[in-house]
Amino acid sequence: MDVQLTVTGLLDRAVDLFPDREIVTKRPDGSLHRYTYADAHARICRLAHALDDLGVERGERVATVAANDYRHLELYFAPPCSGRSIHMCNMRLPDEHFQYIVNDAEDRVLFVDPAFVEKVEANADAFETVERYVVLADEVPETSLDPVIAYEDLVADYPTEYDWPEVDERDECGMCYTSGTTGKPKGVAYTHRAVYLHSLMCGHVDTNGVSESDVVLPVVPMFHANGWGLPYAATLVGAKQVLPGVHTDPGSVAELIADEEVTVSAAVPTIWLEMAEYLDEHPEVDISNIDRLTVGGSAPPESLIRRYDERYDAPIIQGWGMTETTPLATLSTLRKELRDLPAEERYRYRATAGMPVPGIEVRIRDEDGEASPDASERSSGRRARDGNDVPRDGESMGDLQVRGPWVVGEYHNRPDANRESFTEDGWLRTGDIATMDEHGYVDVKDRTKDVIKSGGEWISSVELENELMAHDAVAEATVIAVDHEKWQERPLACVVLREGADASADELREHLAERFPSWWLPDAIEFLDAIPRTSTGKFNKRVLREQYDDVVLEGEREEA
Amino acid sequence: MDVQLTVTGLLDRAVDLFPDREIVTKRPDGSLHRYTYADAHARICRLAHALDDLGVERGERVATVAANDYRHLELYFAPPCSGRSIHMCNMRLPDEHFQYIVNDAEDRVLFVDPAFVEKVEANADAFETVERYVVLADEVPETSLDPVIAYEDLVADYPTEYDWPEVDERDECGMCYTSGTTGKPKGVAYTHRAVYLHSLMCGHVDTNGVSESDVVLPVVPMFHANGWGLPYAATLVGAKQVLPGVHTDPGSVAELIADEEVTVSAAVPTIWLEMAEYLDEHPEVDISNIDRLTVGGSAPPESLIRRYDERYDAPIIQGWGMTETTPLATLSTLRKELRDLPAEERYRYRATAGMPVPGIEVRIRDEDGEASPDASERSSGRRARDGNDVPRDGESMGDLQVRGPWVVGEYHNRPDANRESFTEDGWLRTGDIATMDEHGYVDVKDRTKDVIKSGGEWISSVELENELMAHDAVAEATVIAVDHEKWQERPLACVVLREGADASADELREHLAERFPSWWLPDAIEFLDAIPRTSTGKFNKRVLREQYDDVVLEGEREEA
Repeated sequence: MDVQLTVTGLLDRAVDLFPDREIVTKRPDGSLHRYTYADAHARICRLAHALDDLGVERGERVATVAANDYRHLELYFAPPCSGRSIHMCNMRLPDEHFQYIVNDAEDRVLFVDPAFVEKVEANADAFETVERYVVLADEVPETSLDPVIAYEDLVADYPTEYDWPEVDERDECGMCYTSGTTGKPKGVAYTHRAVYLHSLMCGHVDTNGVSESDVVLPVVPMFHANGWGLPYAATLVGAKQVLPGVHTDPGSVAELIADEEVTVSAAVPTIWLEMAEYLDEHPEVDISNIDRLTVGGSAPPESLIRRYDERYDAPIIQGWGMTETTPLATLSTLRKELRDLPAEERYRYRATAGMPVPGIEVRIRDEDGEASPDASERSSGRRARDGNDVPRDGESMGDLQVRGPWVVGEYHNRPDANRESFTEDGWLRTGDIATMDEHGYVDVKDRTKDVIKSGGEWISSVELENELMAHDAVAEATVIAVDHEKWQERPLACVVLREGADASADELREHLAERFPSWWLPDAIEFLDAIPRTSTGKFNKRVLREQYDDVVLEGEREEA
Repeated sequence: MDVQLTVTGLLDRAVDLFPDREIVTKRPDGSLHRYTYADAHARICRLAHALDDLGVERGERVATVAANDYRHLELYFAPPCSGRSIHMCNMRLPDEHFQYIVNDAEDRVLFVDPAFVEKVEANADAFETVERYVVLADEVPETSLDPVIAYEDLVADYPTEYDWPEVDERDECGMCYTSGTTGKPKGVAYTHRAVYLHSLMCGHVDTNGVSESDVVLPVVPMFHANGWGLPYAATLVGAKQVLPGVHTDPGSVAELIADEEVTVSAAVPTIWLEMAEYLDEHPEVDISNIDRLTVGGSAPPESLIRRYDERYDAPIIQGWGMTETTPLATLSTLRKELRDLPAEERYRYRATAGMPVPGIEVRIRDEDGEASPDASERSSGRRARDGNDVPRDGESMGDLQVRGPWVVGEYHNRPDANRESFTEDGWLRTGDIATMDEHGYVDVKDRTKDVIKSGGEWISSVELENELMAHDAVAEATVIAVDHEKWQERPLACVVLREGADASADELREHLAERFPSWWLPDAIEFLDAIPRTSTGKFNKRVLREQYDDVVLEGEREEA
């Protein structure tokens, strides 16, 4: 049968089989809004009728600037099910980028949470295609946005049923933009097919296994790569959903988990780190109902995984993915062979990005697809997948590339970025440097642009930085590549010492030498007062690279 | 990305991530053959090269007449991955049907297990398209088949790698025929897409949840609807597979389960019934490693489910599906709301066909899509899905219809059957009569052609038969519809008494009256010496219907 894989199919199943399951939202005032999938469906239908009357055509986009709440969830469905697309805006972008994405996506209607009205007001003059604003509230607050209407007024008078149109599974259902740390954000359009398959995979027992019996709380913003796909995956299985609204502080999250009997949640490591601290101070909050916590965005420290195991019996599972991968691509569940390993080794595996989930292929490539100078030597006795794959030894680093039915094949309006980001044989270059081991576990070591390419071997700036910052005297550290006349590139470390602490360059090199081969050790260590940062608070390596642009190191590196 | 969902993708994943996982086969002589996915892959590649040299073109079919073993598994992959199709023949069909399906599928090469060479020999003269026979063995036995070659000779000299062609996910990868209890068997062609999606679904935590950590033993023949999809689902996740070969007796199955640490198995209820008896006699055989057993084909008695729970802690999960549905469509796992019910009620739910799995839609329709005479009354206070759906009350019976991306949309070469079996809006008429309850559980009550349509209400022949056979004096019973001048149809029961036992028609009617409303009770009970049977041993209702064709009952039925 030619049955299309669509977002409508996800919604239909929840309403058909689980109409009475709850969707709970924490309102701005802290009270809880509760309704069912049947209630949500009725309002989704109303919203679709309203989009008809607003003149949003098939294939056009509406934008959301919204928190994780039930109205945002309705917007996850009404536009796609009625043949349109939802563009989930990341309101944390700098104004210039925010304006760019709304114009690039040609958003016709912008739905904005009261909490973010000010941000939208500050940019509205620059929006070229937005014709109308809808505030996600009962009433419109004081605002300069114009024309503007309250969401509840918009949807009030429409029928609670809608005859969904046939959509092709390859039609766009949604769009997110990459956060664009370098250059303009890049638009990623999701198809119905990608979202459906990703949702089915999220219920797979070898992945996150989202079940009808789960209670799912996405702390990760719904504007980050479909809320990591959780709202859609939860709907396919009819799971109860709990949405924190603007209350993503650790106390609120912990209490929601306890009160609503949440079994699955997902967030960046910082959230779980802060929540652990909150729980230490509030032993009366019992989160024992939690069954598993997914983390992504950056790798969780092993200590955090241990802490949740030991104190809360709540395994932290690391996932890796990107906006471009819908987003789940790998997950650090333990395969059968590894479950009886000593705890140390199990934690080491669980702190990696994990194995490719069913549906996703991963390969780790030598630089530019060329065998690196030492590749033949490194491959000896180990199996390389083909001439351009690095050995699966957990040590050999290469470009992490992925492929799969929920990996996008191009960026919106960006032929330049497409040429850079997709290989000729159809794989996405993730921009990450990683290793893979014999069991298929991927460990992300660096960003491609940050790795130090020294004499055909790669040195991870991230690993050196982490080890430097593990030294008691070091407050901050970052490592960049500088040119070297013989080795092409060598590492240079920039270190900020803790107030009152002291450490010499030699002492820090000795500290690093305990863990890394001598040829990894930075040739130079610069002591700075502060490391320059980007607008989002990350170390700004670009500025440092420009600063040390004229440095050319010479002399021998120490051989391993 | 335009990544196609293909059988090649299933195989690639196993070989890439789980090359060392085992596939174990019990050989005809009782010894075990062991190899890995990597070994299997090498031989699959060899076989694909051999098919090239045999001149089997893309899109053409090869046939298997084979047991569940590693060579059959290789045939599950080599033809589809190289752009051809595997037709898995049911060698239990009568000769006439066996000849028909091989000719209808236009099979070019026929792969036959030594155990079934005789059956093939008896039919070979009638095969119109078969050009060559391959015996699945090291050497060719004495045979009249010609030309013939041993499988091991066929694949011996080819390379162990193959550059798989791009295939479209909507291309055919395999074919099975319905067993055709009435008329000719009907050919069901599976697409790569259907098999891939079915495999992904089989790993879903709300279905059978086939995991990389499972050890999977399909007792169900691999020629029955893709072995219920298990060999493909197991390959996607890289699970160890255990194949019983020709040894499907209860002792062999129990010992394989124990010795190979099987966690998941699947078979018709008879197998598990017989295995329970074997285990009672052989308490030394420990099957405690079993995690779950799937049954299908016919509904398991509640007592069997209880027995496996109580004695072996091995939950039996009933699945329902058809050759046309790849096959899994519903599964009787317990949804959250039902897990705390009293045991009686839980067993009642587990003995149903269960809920639609993710991806499958089910509807139960009034006869011919028309509201039945009493529908408006029956619907009062309950929700009907639309005018033609019966209420979801667990009582109202109707035509079971299904729809989904792994439900076929037509039969091979059978426009006549297509008109009968598919609705105008694209659903498969399953030919079953079922109820659905408020939780979405489907209970199959009868075959459409066997249900008794009495005054706008339906009476299940199957339920009456089961209850009659539960009477101590009854050995066999079957119930058919006969014409009635007022009520259109009324039930007539044909009963065979146990040797030496006695029971009057009134006594049996009183027995039925304890469980069913009075208007369900058969108007006539005929005592026979034997009930005519079909070639596969089922009661032959067609013969009985012809025998009682001229009976027209009259008089009042008793009102409820």
